[in-house]
Amino acid sequence: MFITLEGIDGSGKSTQSEKIAEWLESRTGRRTVRTFEPGGWQGGGAIRGFILNTPGLSAMSELLLFLADRSEHISRVILPALRQDCNVLCERWNESTLAYQAGGHELNPSHVRRIIRACSFPEPDVKILLDISPETAIERVKSRKNSPDKFEDEGIKLLRNVAAFYRLIAEEDPAGFVRVVCDGLTEDEVFTKITAGLEARLWRSR
Amino acid sequence: MFITLEGIDGSGKSTQSEKIAEWLESRTGRRTVRTFEPGGWQGGGAIRGFILNTPGLSAMSELLLFLADRSEHISRVILPALRQDCNVLCERWNESTLAYQAGGHELNPSHVRRIIRACSFPEPDVKILLDISPETAIERVKSRKNSPDKFEDEGIKLLRNVAAFYRLIAEEDPAGFVRVVCDGLTEDEVFTKITAGLEARLWRSR
Repeated sequence: MFITLEGIDGSGKSTQSEKIAEWLESRTGRRTVRTFEPGGWQGGGAIRGFILNTPGLSAMSELLLFLADRSEHISRVILPALRQDCNVLCERWNESTLAYQAGGHELNPSHVRRIIRACSFPEPDVKILLDISPETAIERVKSRKNSPDKFEDEGIKLLRNVAAFYRLIAEEDPAGFVRVVCDGLTEDEVFTKITAGLEARLWRSR
Repeated sequence: MFITLEGIDGSGKSTQSEKIAEWLESRTGRRTVRTFEPGGWQGGGAIRGFILNTPGLSAMSELLLFLADRSEHISRVILPALRQDCNVLCERWNESTLAYQAGGHELNPSHVRRIIRACSFPEPDVKILLDISPETAIERVKSRKNSPDKFEDEGIKLLRNVAAFYRLIAEEDPAGFVRVVCDGLTEDEVFTKITAGLEARLWRSR
């Protein structure tokens, strides 16, 4: 089982990932590997660092660097885990790339889709979208101990565009997405909606 | 005028680039910017370094990193130069990526072509292929002062595959390529053939 978690920073991906992993292990009886992008493989921090520390990098170059990071993440982490019959739960995937580079940085969406599609990366069995308003997300990020980095300091306008683009992607593929509108819900309420969605997408439909 | 120079290491790209640049300036009356890939922009050395210093990087990840490097090279060096009405002479371009990643590293050629095509990078007005036998090229590289790096130490089998793939690409697009078989020719003889080919492709055909 390959499941991805999408949403802007502050949407609760890491928190939910921890809960989902535990639930998924008991639901499937299989070990669940939790991972993330960008930089979720040994050595991947260097690509993330390069993106953060190269001022003025174009959105297209960023896109290709994220895809290079994904490619290596697949070879080193995701495929080996799936081959060992583990579940994989990954924070961010193609949909993040599309939402940020097309929705946020305003690259042509068809162009971004074409490049992503050409890579032929593995498709998740189901994608979870933590749909949250940028205002709520920013409040959460601000309250974190670590200082925000480039990915978490991109301004409300950009985040609104990204959030809107995520919603669009989820609407285009309702069978592939579990979308949870998170504003006003507690962590546990969000989690309950996620597991209900996963049950419906992964088991009841079979 | 945007011209690229292709060929395996040791084929004489840098030597010929210097001569062609001078010739092109007097032929066109325009400044000629000489550049190269990978790493031909300020900061690009880091991507090249990452590729060299990350053992076991997959061919697909390498491909995407080369494309990221190209994307940034285009934004920072190539497009600005073309916009200032300069000629651009670049060592290595899409055809290197295709010849090395599909011919050398045995990725599926259609897959590599699809990814490269999806990027929609600028097409050169003409591409020069310095077609040389790997044996001659390796002798030349060995006689250089600097020690060979990963790109120049890839073994005869890989280089044969790359050279063969370059030839295939040039044969598929005879109007776009000036191909010079270099074995047994002096630098000046190669240069004469190149300029004759450029005259034919760039001026006589107009």
